[in-house]
Amino acid sequence: MKTLVICSGGLDSVSLAHKVAAEQELSGLLSFDYGQRHKKELDFAAACAARLKVLHQVIDINAIGRSLSGSALTDDLDVPDGHYAEETMRVTVVPNRNAIMLAIAFGVAASQKADAVATAVHGGDHFIYPDCRPGFIDAFQTMQLHALEGYADIRLYAPYVNISKADIVTDGVKHHTPFAETWSCYKGGERHCGRCGTCVERREAFHLAEIEDPTDYEDREYWREAIRNAGR
Amino acid sequence: MKTLVICSGGLDSVSLAHKVAAEQELSGLLSFDYGQRHKKELDFAAACAARLKVLHQVIDINAIGRSLSGSALTDDLDVPDGHYAEETMRVTVVPNRNAIMLAIAFGVAASQKADAVATAVHGGDHFIYPDCRPGFIDAFQTMQLHALEGYADIRLYAPYVNISKADIVTDGVKHHTPFAETWSCYKGGERHCGRCGTCVERREAFHLAEIEDPTDYEDREYWREAIRNAGR
Repeated sequence: MKTLVICSGGLDSVSLAHKVAAEQELSGLLSFDYGQRHKKELDFAAACAARLKVLHQVIDINAIGRSLSGSALTDDLDVPDGHYAEETMRVTVVPNRNAIMLAIAFGVAASQKADAVATAVHGGDHFIYPDCRPGFIDAFQTMQLHALEGYADIRLYAPYVNISKADIVTDGVKHHTPFAETWSCYKGGERHCGRCGTCVERREAFHLAEIEDPTDYEDREYWREAIRNAGR
Repeated sequence: MKTLVICSGGLDSVSLAHKVAAEQELSGLLSFDYGQRHKKELDFAAACAARLKVLHQVIDINAIGRSLSGSALTDDLDVPDGHYAEETMRVTVVPNRNAIMLAIAFGVAASQKADAVATAVHGGDHFIYPDCRPGFIDAFQTMQLHALEGYADIRLYAPYVNISKADIVTDGVKHHTPFAETWSCYKGGERHCGRCGTCVERREAFHLAEIEDPTDYEDREYWREAIRNAGR
C-alpha cells in the first residue's frame, strides 16, 4: 500500500511517517504552510523526509488561512500558556482545518496514484477538536469514496485516532523515531518553550509513556504546575 | 438563513446567487482562482457580487492546483471541442476539486458565521463527475456536521443537484439572472468559442429550456453538430 503521510514535523506525524515507512510503502510526506507562527516545524518535516528518503511537498495555503481568521496559530493573538484545557485550546482552532488539509491531501494522492492518506490525529485531541474524532474520520472516508468514485480508491489511515499521545511515544520508540528531531512548540522560538499547551502535552506524554524526553525546553518543569492547575 | 454562495462566474452559480438573494439572505460570493485558463469568469463573479451588493472573496488555490497536475483546465493540454462526452471531459477533471473547494468554503462560512454554503452542482454533471452526485453531496454534509460539531452548524445547499442545466436556465429566468453577464467557455477568449464542451452544453441548455440565448458566440451553430456526433 503506497501511503502519503500528512506530516507537520511534530512528534505525532513524524512518528507516523516512521511507522508507515516500517510497515507499508511510504510514498511521500505532505506539509501545509498555513502561516503558522511555529513554521520551523516544517524544517523537521523536511528532515524526516530526507531521513526516510522520500519526497517532501509543502503546499502553501496561506491565502486560505487569511480568509479563516480568529486563530492564535496564525494571527496576532497570544498563544496561551498551560495545559490543553478547553478555554486555552479554543483559540488555536482554525475552522475546518483538518477537512481542508485532508481534502487537498486526497487530491494529491489521487494525482500521484497513492493508495492511502495517513493522518496523525489522536485520541488526546478528541475533547476539543471535533475534526480529530473517529466519527469525523469515518465520515471523511465515506465522503472521499463518493468524491473519487471511478477515478481512485484511496483509504484514510488514522492509526492513532483512538490512542493517546503517550501511546504514540511508545509506538514511536518501536519504529526508532528520533523524537529530538520533531517540533511541537506553538511559539516557534529557538528552543521548545515548555509552557504552551502543546509543550505541556508533549512533556506529559513522555512522562506517561515512561520514556526519557530528549527535548530541549526553556522551562522543563512548568508542565507539572500546568497539569495541577488544569485539575488533573 | 445567511448563505455563502460558491460562484465561479458561470451560468449555474450566477443563477444560484440570484436565487439565494431572492429567497434567503445572501451573505457573500466566494470564488477560487486555481489557475484556470478561463480566469475571466472571475470578473463575472465580481460583477454579480456588485450587482447583488455583497462581498466577493477570491481565494487563491494556485499552489494547490500546481500539486494536482494532469487537467486541461490548468495546464498546457488542449481543451477538447465537442459535447461533454466522457472521453473529452475526463481531461477537465481536477482530482478532488469539489471536495477541496467545499471544505474551504465551510471554513470561510464558519469564520463568517454563515448558516449555509450553496453550490451549483447539477444533474448534467453526474455521469462523469462523481463529486457532483447526490451521494457525494449527502456524504459531504455528514462529514461537515462532524468536523464542526460544537462550533458551527452549517448546511450544504445544492438546489440544482437533481436538475439539468436547462432547468437552471428556467430557474434563472425566474430570478432575473442576466445570462449575458455569465461566463462558461473553457478557452477564456474574447467571446464564447461555441465549440468547447461547456459552450456546447450552455447552448443546448438554452435550446432545451426554450429561452433565447443572449451569449455572443464565435461559432453559434457548432453545437448541433457536436450533439449529433455525440450520438444524442
